Amino acid sequence: MTMARVSFEAQYPDPRLPARLGRLVTPHGTLETPAFTVVGTQATVKGLLPAQVTQLGAQAVLCNTYHLYLRPGPDIVAAHGGLHGFMQWPGPMFTDSGGYQVFSLGSGMEQGIGKLVGTFPDEDVSRGRRPAGAGSHGKLSRVDDDGVTFRSHVDGSTQRLTPERSIEIQEKLGADVILAFDEPTSPLDDEEYTRQAMGRTHRWAERCLSARRRPDQALYGVVQGGAYQALREESAAFIAGLPFDGFAIGGSLGRSKQDMAKVLDWSVPSLPADWPRHMLGIGEPEDFFACVERGIDTFDCVAPTRLARHGVLYTATGRITITQARFREDRGPIDAGCACSTCRDFTRAYLRHLFVADELLGYVLATIHNLHAILNLMARIRAAIAAGTLQALKADVLGRLGAAAPEGVAHA
Amino acid sequence: MTMARVSFEAQYPDPRLPARLGRLVTPHGTLETPAFTVVGTQATVKGLLPAQVTQLGAQAVLCNTYHLYLRPGPDIVAAHGGLHGFMQWPGPMFTDSGGYQVFSLGSGMEQGIGKLVGTFPDEDVSRGRRPAGAGSHGKLSRVDDDGVTFRSHVDGSTQRLTPERSIEIQEKLGADVILAFDEPTSPLDDEEYTRQAMGRTHRWAERCLSARRRPDQALYGVVQGGAYQALREESAAFIAGLPFDGFAIGGSLGRSKQDMAKVLDWSVPSLPADWPRHMLGIGEPEDFFACVERGIDTFDCVAPTRLARHGVLYTATGRITITQARFREDRGPIDAGCACSTCRDFTRAYLRHLFVADELLGYVLATIHNLHAILNLMARIRAAIAAGTLQALKADVLGRLGAAAPEGVAHA
Repeated sequence: MTMARVSFEAQYPDPRLPARLGRLVTPHGTLETPAFTVVGTQATVKGLLPAQVTQLGAQAVLCNTYHLYLRPGPDIVAAHGGLHGFMQWPGPMFTDSGGYQVFSLGSGMEQGIGKLVGTFPDEDVSRGRRPAGAGSHGKLSRVDDDGVTFRSHVDGSTQRLTPERSIEIQEKLGADVILAFDEPTSPLDDEEYTRQAMGRTHRWAERCLSARRRPDQALYGVVQGGAYQALREESAAFIAGLPFDGFAIGGSLGRSKQDMAKVLDWSVPSLPADWPRHMLGIGEPEDFFACVERGIDTFDCVAPTRLARHGVLYTATGRITITQARFREDRGPIDAGCACSTCRDFTRAYLRHLFVADELLGYVLATIHNLHAILNLMARIRAAIAAGTLQALKADVLGRLGAAAPEGVAHA
Repeated sequence: MTMARVSFEAQYPDPRLPARLGRLVTPHGTLETPAFTVVGTQATVKGLLPAQVTQLGAQAVLCNTYHLYLRPGPDIVAAHGGLHGFMQWPGPMFTDSGGYQVFSLGSGMEQGIGKLVGTFPDEDVSRGRRPAGAGSHGKLSRVDDDGVTFRSHVDGSTQRLTPERSIEIQEKLGADVILAFDEPTSPLDDEEYTRQAMGRTHRWAERCLSARRRPDQALYGVVQGGAYQALREESAAFIAGLPFDGFAIGGSLGRSKQDMAKVLDWSVPSLPADWPRHMLGIGEPEDFFACVERGIDTFDCVAPTRLARHGVLYTATGRITITQARFREDRGPIDAGCACSTCRDFTRAYLRHLFVADELLGYVLATIHNLHAILNLMARIRAAIAAGTLQALKADVLGRLGAAAPEGVAHA
């Protein structure tokens, strides 16, 4: 059996700029980058058939190792020939390492790392961590130098992940791109704790490389170091020096979009020029430009699909919350400029009705719309890089978004 | 503007038998009958895009006037050009009258009429009714000779439907086939109460005919009379004597499948030979044969879609409940003989995973499967009537179903 390998090539239409067009060739097809990988946490893009995901122009799906490890378990997925067979997604696929979730979901609060605040046990080795909102059920994960012991959010059982175990699971899940097991940190972590976690991430990176067996999967290393310049620079240099097939930026990106740009400026220049780079957990339209301008190739984020299920829909002039009473009789589409099937066929009034009535089709139609919006924006970004018009596109997109007052909706 | 009218023609491949093939021609297309109309209660077939419903071979959708009256309201639907525009279903469409729901949902218990037991107030005019399971929140609907006052299950508001109001709403909803407003009865109703309700149904039938204004909609009268021979015969004769465009059998069908057959035998012979006949709320594979053999043309039932959302899936040898542990590693399709897209692409293990993880796609895939099973069976029934092999098909289908022990799953 011939094992196809993953390869990447990048071209720079404007050689003075880091923004680039890439082709990430995998055994299951090629991603034209910059690309957004659609999140399919539990081996499903919530509510959509694989054919619908393909029709939207999605090039890749990212599934979560933490969830699939707990349920249905990697062996059942492997018996189906991996995730491609299990969920019938024929194209390129990513898995994350589980590191993010054992420290956030395992601690009872999704997205507790990187973007907002973490919920952490106050008696583990994470001395620098403050258990914001942890309450009495905070002690759900415990890190040591060998790995992490955590409590399953599914059944409360005690589980353990190590670098070797994460790689073993990801090899059974069989994605084309897999990630090194890391310890992400939160903006609440101080520099000392972030340094310790970074050290563990680096030692675990080497163990992941030693543990890997499948040559047909690309293994990406993850840069950590929080929002601390010295740590990010140190981490990027260290991870860049290891024989990974690609690199990801993870962990705390600070407390603002400006912080995120700084983290990229501290991290990306140390990474090898023509290796693929993935930005973990970023998927807001306004963030793509800052990342692509700095040489990021791929993204993943739950925001488009999760917001959709809460009725929060992207438009060219900002988000709308479709459940609001003002849309009750609105026979216009979600976004007059949108070419998605939801906007082609259905009115805001119908969408609102489905959400108010808690109808499954509402979540489906909203997910189609938000994913189209993100994937279409990414296609426009690729075209603009090719044409040398990225700055004009950025000014146009961000200008329109800025024209509307943001809705008071939490980024769940 | 030319108003297309609804017309029906029937042919009897075996003139000795009541089973027939029909063509119900509507302004939005033609149903080849016998046909199952897919239930889209709140202007959506739960979880499916209209294009998916079409791909399944569904010929018509039936929406519920009660639900759409309460939410989003008939005027919003009318502003979209009716249900066809609102939900973007291009084909033939039915609405029921709201009568069933005001007496069941309005009383706090769906499907409380006809099939099992009703939940009714014990202080309204329904003297013969016993509030089985009604508890303290039973007093939700009150019938008088003019109409029904009931409490909305959405917001608890007091609402009222009369024959005239039901027709007005159904004309705004704009389906191709609409139903007269009736008072269905339950197997718990005694003969005296059933007679009173039947009398109201008859007087309301005349008022519905007087109230109708749209010549492009077919208005069906509803035969009531419970499981009482004299009442069913009287009701069928009375309703058949009114200038309806078609006829439906509603209300209590007794307590067994044998009772249902008797109700049909008492009702159908009085109906005009070549007018269309609809069986309300029947959708189990084994029931279709008994009805088609007696000259029923169309059906509606929530069972295929509702069971699907509970993970109860049809197979040629009976239902399976996909959440059971025995399917955990089962890489076979739901039904090896099924040609639906779910069975073509996905394993029982994957379906089980989606249900256990409460993933929306599970409900979608299960709904596709169950609807395919019912619609495909109906297509086979049409082919068998044409070929004169209906009895052989019946023996084959029921034989296989009988070969499996039924699952202990309540018909929710």
